[in-house]
Amino acid sequence: MMKFTVLTLFPEQVEAAFSHSIMKRAMEDGKIELCCINIRDYTKDPHGHVDDAPFGGGAGMLMQAEPIYEAFSEIQEKENPTKVIYCSPRGRIFSQKIAEELAEESHIVFLCGHYEGVDQRALELLNAEELSLGDYVLSGGELACAIMMDAISRVREGVLNKKESYEEESFSNGLLEYPQYTRPREYKGLTVPDVLLSGDHKKIAAWRHEESLKLTEEVRPDLYQLYREKNPEEFQPKKKRRK
Amino acid sequence: MMKFTVLTLFPEQVEAAFSHSIMKRAMEDGKIELCCINIRDYTKDPHGHVDDAPFGGGAGMLMQAEPIYEAFSEIQEKENPTKVIYCSPRGRIFSQKIAEELAEESHIVFLCGHYEGVDQRALELLNAEELSLGDYVLSGGELACAIMMDAISRVREGVLNKKESYEEESFSNGLLEYPQYTRPREYKGLTVPDVLLSGDHKKIAAWRHEESLKLTEEVRPDLYQLYREKNPEEFQPKKKRRK
Repeated sequence: MMKFTVLTLFPEQVEAAFSHSIMKRAMEDGKIELCCINIRDYTKDPHGHVDDAPFGGGAGMLMQAEPIYEAFSEIQEKENPTKVIYCSPRGRIFSQKIAEELAEESHIVFLCGHYEGVDQRALELLNAEELSLGDYVLSGGELACAIMMDAISRVREGVLNKKESYEEESFSNGLLEYPQYTRPREYKGLTVPDVLLSGDHKKIAAWRHEESLKLTEEVRPDLYQLYREKNPEEFQPKKKRRK
Repeated sequence: MMKFTVLTLFPEQVEAAFSHSIMKRAMEDGKIELCCINIRDYTKDPHGHVDDAPFGGGAGMLMQAEPIYEAFSEIQEKENPTKVIYCSPRGRIFSQKIAEELAEESHIVFLCGHYEGVDQRALELLNAEELSLGDYVLSGGELACAIMMDAISRVREGVLNKKESYEEESFSNGLLEYPQYTRPREYKGLTVPDVLLSGDHKKIAAWRHEESLKLTEEVRPDLYQLYREKNPEEFQPKKKRRK
């Protein structure tokens, strides 16, 4: 059982984002537990405010350290979170490798920022690791943490069934996935490549690999380069590549 | 007004993910329109199936081209979508720059994949551009497209108010953001750096810039390198950097 606790100003958004097929099933099966805590419940401000203007000036509002730390302390007293993550564009870029590492944790607390961010001292007190989904600006950390929870959960033993778990393998060779086709054989004049109907598994595997290579070279030269470096024998000039 | 149409098997998930503060307000203000279409409503299969096994073998199921294309055709007949995006780990990596480009479109259709992916012919018929959030595997495209819609919407004129729009600027200098602090001045023994209380705006700006540089160098050497290349005058040895 893996537990996620999310500290957020918008618990409904996190719950809703997470309440779909695979994740929903993992929760029902007791593989994953999700607990969303509203930071606003921990403010001592009589008007329920959780934010204030930044010291030193600047536009926007910051989430204050106190309600965040109060909410976190309550979790810490009752339970034993093994990791705290703050979803933020200031962090390391999230990746499949990080998802795999995090899937080893038993209880991850996510802090979702909003407005202009959070008081730095909240991050220090929680010993939070900052992780970023990518180089783009979002309205808050809620969707970002839902994405991370999804990617992490999928790696956990027993969350995916055998049929589904194939995807990970296809990603882990470091190439983008080849084109896929399903019934019917012809649709709107577009046909399935003959090789896929041939029944020749060796040929099919070779075609798929070639297509993966082509696509990766075109769309993600960075991944293609990495793949070449890791698999030099495949790119030796004397060895002609199969078409 | 910008319109998003989402073709998905889980419309509630997209709607729920998108129904939070800033995006909700943008929808209420008529700046953004969101329309979710259930692909399942367009299947001709008597059991409502929308997926089938891949030709050539392999685990998992693929979404079939027909219901996707039927759903899209109906949109195309009635409206004039200017762009189609398929959220997929096979695509170019989504970025703030891409968000800015897409914010120029008037009507974007998002196709959300599920299971093992979609029949390649659906992507061809829709002329879909594949975009990826990052190098990690997700259960489906729903959360990914919600993230992209959020990032794109924020760039649109009028979606953010003046106070909020500052964030973009802070990201666009190519450095990670400096630490921020708000009231109280002391919390759990942790104090706000003196400079931020000095009232000296020049000093504050210099401190923040220095902190941004330090953090970027440590966490994102790739961004730091880019920044150095773009701002060589800042790193000339004779010119001593302010502390």
